[in-house]
Amino acid sequence: MASDNKSTADYIRDALDGRWRDVKNETRAKLSHEAFRPHYTPNTVIARAKVAEQMQMMAAAGVSDEGFRKEHGGTGDVGAAVTMIEMLAMSDLSLMVKAGVQWGLFGGAVENLGTERHASYVRDIITLDLLGCFAMTETGHGSDVQSLETTATYDVETEEFVVNSPTPTSRKDYIGGAAETATIASVFAQLITHQDGKPVNHGVHCVLVPIRDADGNDLPGVTTSDCHYKGGLPGVDNGRIMFDNVRVPRVNLLNKYGEVEPDGTYTSPIDNANRRFFTMIGTLIRGRVTVGGSAGNAAHVALDIATRYALQRRQFSAPGDDDHEVLIMDYLVHQRRLFPLIAKSYALQFAQNELVSKCHDLQTSDVVDAEEQRELEARAAGLKAANTWHASLAIQEAREACGGAGYMAENRLIALRADTDVFTTFEGDNHVLTQLVAKELLTAYADDIKSMSPVEWVRFAANTVGDRVKKRTAAEAIMQRIVDSRQDNEEEGSLFNRGTQVQMFEDREEYLLSSVARRLQGKSKEMSAFDAFNAVQDHVLHAAKAHIDTVVLEAFVAGIESCRDREARELLGVVCDLYALSVIEEDKAWFIEHRYLSTERAKAVTRGINDRCRVLRPHARTLVDGFGIPEPLRYAEMLHPENLPD
Amino acid sequence: MASDNKSTADYIRDALDGRWRDVKNETRAKLSHEAFRPHYTPNTVIARAKVAEQMQMMAAAGVSDEGFRKEHGGTGDVGAAVTMIEMLAMSDLSLMVKAGVQWGLFGGAVENLGTERHASYVRDIITLDLLGCFAMTETGHGSDVQSLETTATYDVETEEFVVNSPTPTSRKDYIGGAAETATIASVFAQLITHQDGKPVNHGVHCVLVPIRDADGNDLPGVTTSDCHYKGGLPGVDNGRIMFDNVRVPRVNLLNKYGEVEPDGTYTSPIDNANRRFFTMIGTLIRGRVTVGGSAGNAAHVALDIATRYALQRRQFSAPGDDDHEVLIMDYLVHQRRLFPLIAKSYALQFAQNELVSKCHDLQTSDVVDAEEQRELEARAAGLKAANTWHASLAIQEAREACGGAGYMAENRLIALRADTDVFTTFEGDNHVLTQLVAKELLTAYADDIKSMSPVEWVRFAANTVGDRVKKRTAAEAIMQRIVDSRQDNEEEGSLFNRGTQVQMFEDREEYLLSSVARRLQGKSKEMSAFDAFNAVQDHVLHAAKAHIDTVVLEAFVAGIESCRDREARELLGVVCDLYALSVIEEDKAWFIEHRYLSTERAKAVTRGINDRCRVLRPHARTLVDGFGIPEPLRYAEMLHPENLPD
Repeated sequence: MASDNKSTADYIRDALDGRWRDVKNETRAKLSHEAFRPHYTPNTVIARAKVAEQMQMMAAAGVSDEGFRKEHGGTGDVGAAVTMIEMLAMSDLSLMVKAGVQWGLFGGAVENLGTERHASYVRDIITLDLLGCFAMTETGHGSDVQSLETTATYDVETEEFVVNSPTPTSRKDYIGGAAETATIASVFAQLITHQDGKPVNHGVHCVLVPIRDADGNDLPGVTTSDCHYKGGLPGVDNGRIMFDNVRVPRVNLLNKYGEVEPDGTYTSPIDNANRRFFTMIGTLIRGRVTVGGSAGNAAHVALDIATRYALQRRQFSAPGDDDHEVLIMDYLVHQRRLFPLIAKSYALQFAQNELVSKCHDLQTSDVVDAEEQRELEARAAGLKAANTWHASLAIQEAREACGGAGYMAENRLIALRADTDVFTTFEGDNHVLTQLVAKELLTAYADDIKSMSPVEWVRFAANTVGDRVKKRTAAEAIMQRIVDSRQDNEEEGSLFNRGTQVQMFEDREEYLLSSVARRLQGKSKEMSAFDAFNAVQDHVLHAAKAHIDTVVLEAFVAGIESCRDREARELLGVVCDLYALSVIEEDKAWFIEHRYLSTERAKAVTRGINDRCRVLRPHARTLVDGFGIPEPLRYAEMLHPENLPD
Repeated sequence: MASDNKSTADYIRDALDGRWRDVKNETRAKLSHEAFRPHYTPNTVIARAKVAEQMQMMAAAGVSDEGFRKEHGGTGDVGAAVTMIEMLAMSDLSLMVKAGVQWGLFGGAVENLGTERHASYVRDIITLDLLGCFAMTETGHGSDVQSLETTATYDVETEEFVVNSPTPTSRKDYIGGAAETATIASVFAQLITHQDGKPVNHGVHCVLVPIRDADGNDLPGVTTSDCHYKGGLPGVDNGRIMFDNVRVPRVNLLNKYGEVEPDGTYTSPIDNANRRFFTMIGTLIRGRVTVGGSAGNAAHVALDIATRYALQRRQFSAPGDDDHEVLIMDYLVHQRRLFPLIAKSYALQFAQNELVSKCHDLQTSDVVDAEEQRELEARAAGLKAANTWHASLAIQEAREACGGAGYMAENRLIALRADTDVFTTFEGDNHVLTQLVAKELLTAYADDIKSMSPVEWVRFAANTVGDRVKKRTAAEAIMQRIVDSRQDNEEEGSLFNRGTQVQMFEDREEYLLSSVARRLQGKSKEMSAFDAFNAVQDHVLHAAKAHIDTVVLEAFVAGIESCRDREARELLGVVCDLYALSVIEEDKAWFIEHRYLSTERAKAVTRGINDRCRVLRPHARTLVDGFGIPEPLRYAEMLHPENLPD
């Protein structure tokens, strides 16, 4: 232990907290208030009322300022804004989603897609004087946003947009806030003007459309309905909206990337309609970043609860000692259920820290570097998928590891599981996002392929794959030093060398990417574009996942370097080993098939994992303390603090 | 298609239905009644009332007779009873659990642990004139039932048992029916009599204890409480019970395996206390069988819904055809998400059919063959774990495959997922059950090890492992013929030979079992029993899972033979291939490491899976039709029948 009275867990928490650790500590204090104590109810009336009250408290405390620019009444600290919303997940995921919709998605759309003429909206969004919803997804189109059917047609006579839902499938669906609370919607719709009497579609744009009056009644032409019961998130009033030729003033168009003049002339700073669309979508990146981080925090809470339970729960007698039952944490299989998940949570948190940092730097920079922006988008997509899939898995395992007690609402795991379930779907379906990562990697940063359908971009990639510029994500110097220290030999011990691990991750990514490119080129000559796409789709996803794994491992390595305490660094090193070995074990067949692992060394992977579980066993509590969950938020009825060992 | 106008799907359904297909068809008709139409509410008051009403309808229809012996007013058709309760899962899992508790667990305990003097109870249980609960699990002990703390102490003065909860952890917990509906409980407790003034503990026995009066008030000395919100199953009133020296007459002891005479003398037909306990528990096997089958049926419904949705949902344009979006079922990755799960559902259903059949034959036989009974218990444990884990996974994948729509309660997937979640835990935690399978396999059917703790039996096994008698589960002649036709060569095609597949499964099981036994023998010499156990625990579970996989594959093979239509058999053959290859792929690293698969042939496994997905694509609807889910029970709001292709 170091001299300043900090424990190993404190040092680990500081490292895991990263650049916004002060904001995290402030938020921990705020969330320790009684009003944010975790509660459970499936009753949507009660849950919605509770969240509304919490939102008001947050706005009153000035929490919502952070994400918005100074000229709009905010502080402009993007990283702080993302961090604070992510941390709400430790209290209540409904609250996190409601805050994310109001200040992240809806507020973000107005601020980033609008112009000065929408500044007063932003001020009211910060204070909750204006409650909005983000009306993008439709019943018929979720992943393929460019194909939305809602129309916003400019009427030059009245200088208004006519917003319409022309088909049943054009209904806005699952929209948070649309059922009850929002009085206005940022509606994504095909923008249509007329030229020479003929309609011209400029692609999807965003228009502000008031949907209900102060009494909560639908405005004329608007029909909202309530999605009502869902798999979780009872405090979020998801709803549906149909528009029957609803008229809004011309200035309601969020016009930063596309403007319609009073006379109906359409102008845009970006000529190419596809590029324009993806630039607009790209400014909304924060939502995706926040969702991944929030899922990560929910997983921390679940793993914390399950670990503490395993340190108190005993079952079956130890041999020769009928009076003492064995702590379930002492069983190897229980360690193998929880420790690799904790290790992955650590890894993902370090990667998320880098992502938030990158997002902050880009969004607060005066000049936007297009390549950096694209990289950010791919990283956000990949980590959103990784974090949310991990959360589903980790919370589920935590639930099962607590047996029947884990199924009781009072022990929180089932709400964490149910609430985060949809995180793998919203803000981009994980499979589609993983393909997006591959798309970014395979097309060597070409700009104009963003809008292509999955099949189209694969066809494109097959023809144009070039030399990918290999870029390390974490500090290049650190990574190079570590890779240089690798041990490329057949000895079992080399598997536990960090450089060797990093090299194995990088080699796998490179091999998968280049082989998928070769296969694409081959297949495209033999068969239809769709069949070629289908022939390699699983391979494409595998390559993307390998890339994400590398990004995450490299972030972990850099994160360890940032830790200021030797003991804490050593412990983090074992956790990192466990993460790396778990990833290798999961794809062990691939490593053997492609001769990156001999069958003998492969067996050592499993032994290595078991050994590390044993080493980490005495540190189980320190590991979850490192997540830094405030005492009131790690509450579960079954946990009795007096039963916990020190 | 055959001449009798049956479709391929009809033939497949008949094969999947197995021996009790007539009962299944009758139950399908009954469940098509409006009262059993799936509904959703998290409101426990509404859900409990609905289930109570459905239970009354079932009792009135005579459904509950089947499971009980003729002399008790039943029909004695065990297979029919299990089958019918399993099928309730297609309507509402709360109903399935309530029926399972009343007629399976509670009724089963009274019938199988009681004697003639309890016959009148049985008649009232059948008609619902007596509502009971099965009070086994306690807050402190779930998996280790032998260590329950509740006591039933005989008082010779009054000829009563005094039932008591001596510690907070002795509280009966999570008990279905205890919160509200049950008026009586079958309480598992340490049975204590006095000899020469000293207490003697005879181990866990079951005593009937009235807990509340007709008005629903707790009886004196009984304190019940409500577990209230859980992860699902809102229609089941799980509760807690504490006993404060509650007195019940001597005759309330279910006395088939242990009797206390009026003078306090204890007698039992089974001298050994451990064997007595496990014999008692063994008679309750039906609950475990039913839970596995019910989870399987819930998975069928989820896969049916997700498949139909994938046959109607389109997203992203096909290349060169902007007007037609691609059906999501046409994407390879979507096929790979759903088809292997459907294949595993088929495999598990065939295995479940054999299990129910074996259970029926043993429980309706006049003589109980001890070895057959032990085998049945191991099989029930293994298939319960396999079926419930599969259900969790399959329903979750189905939910995600339906995107945001899948998260809406109206589309049923989230209730199926939430309700079945606890199935991996109750009726035996899956990890503990999997160890039980290994225990059975490793100890070569020794009788007296049943009561040992995990550590103890491993120590025992290490010392006594003998030659295991290899027994095939499905018809031996069929299996031998198929294994004889295997192709033991390095050619890729041999992977698709059924005999080769079966041989690979059997080889893996044999190797894992014998190697775990060898390691146990070695480790036991080097370290403490607990450390030796921990050193091999993951290996033990792997061996057990390999065994279960073999059982399931062999059941699939036998099931195909039972199908009477050539076309249907061919289709089943492809599905069986997909199942076998998926299992091999999941454990591919092991097969390579142990030289059962060359790295070249290993790559062919993945290709083989993709090829079979393509072959099955046109039969997607037929495959889910084969599950035979009645139209009203396959309902989901998002499915529009008119959108489905023929």
